[in-house]
Amino acid sequence: MQRSSFREMNCSIGQSLEVVGEWWSLLIIRDAFLGVTRFDDFQERLGIARNVLNQRLSHLVDEGVFERVAYNEHPPRFDYVLTEQGRDLWPVVVALRQWGDRWRAPDGPPLQLVHRECGHIAELIPVCEHCGDVVGPADVNVVAGPGDATKKHRPSR
Amino acid sequence: MQRSSFREMNCSIGQSLEVVGEWWSLLIIRDAFLGVTRFDDFQERLGIARNVLNQRLSHLVDEGVFERVAYNEHPPRFDYVLTEQGRDLWPVVVALRQWGDRWRAPDGPPLQLVHRECGHIAELIPVCEHCGDVVGPADVNVVAGPGDATKKHRPSR
Repeated sequence: MQRSSFREMNCSIGQSLEVVGEWWSLLIIRDAFLGVTRFDDFQERLGIARNVLNQRLSHLVDEGVFERVAYNEHPPRFDYVLTEQGRDLWPVVVALRQWGDRWRAPDGPPLQLVHRECGHIAELIPVCEHCGDVVGPADVNVVAGPGDATKKHRPSR
Repeated sequence: MQRSSFREMNCSIGQSLEVVGEWWSLLIIRDAFLGVTRFDDFQERLGIARNVLNQRLSHLVDEGVFERVAYNEHPPRFDYVLTEQGRDLWPVVVALRQWGDRWRAPDGPPLQLVHRECGHIAELIPVCEHCGDVVGPADVNVVAGPGDATKKHRPSR
């Protein structure tokens, strides 16, 4: 499989995929949101090779998505805990879940989210933080931001 | 690189990643949202090998994310156009963009979204479709849905 780096792209999507775009990474993060913290539990739930899991977790720790928190000193044992950066990936995980629920779950969603506050099984919808309206791709114009044109590679106009 | 299929997982995130989780796929979809439709334009913007781009686009067509729309008959030439399924990936792309803007854009966002209706440069925030409140990971309980336990592999509780 062809593999290169998106690091030099001046695109926030490319930068995000550089962090979480490897095969398995978002499923590891999904499991972390479901409460998994231990290497062996990730391994068992995902059915992933231990060396691949170790590589992915190390990358995610290096990137600041997880931190290792010791729960035993001799021998050293760690929980893998989402950092603030990691918890901030929640909208990505939710968006992927909702798409799969809508288009790839003929028997209905395997899991659902109940909003504690209102008690409903809820889809989450993206709204504009200013006016609160639901926003879709046809409702926005894409404009250059302050970080525009600061790097050489600019696949995103 | 280890590569397996998530198809047998009873998890909507796994199913979504089976469709769009390959390296490059979400960047191709990003460019489609920016208006790109031609093979050569994707290729030039992404700097991706033509065989890899061809493999990715074919997979996305097979999965129903893009459709090929002929714009020339002799020789046959196609636009790659997002289907309804494809356009429904917009929240995934937006969530990745916003994470990258927040955590990997030290000079500020390269691109910004202006909400046409209200005229503001807007972050999109996920709200509960029932009550309209902003919802984060601590605000939901995860419960089994109708598609629970219908398959053998169930990494997601």
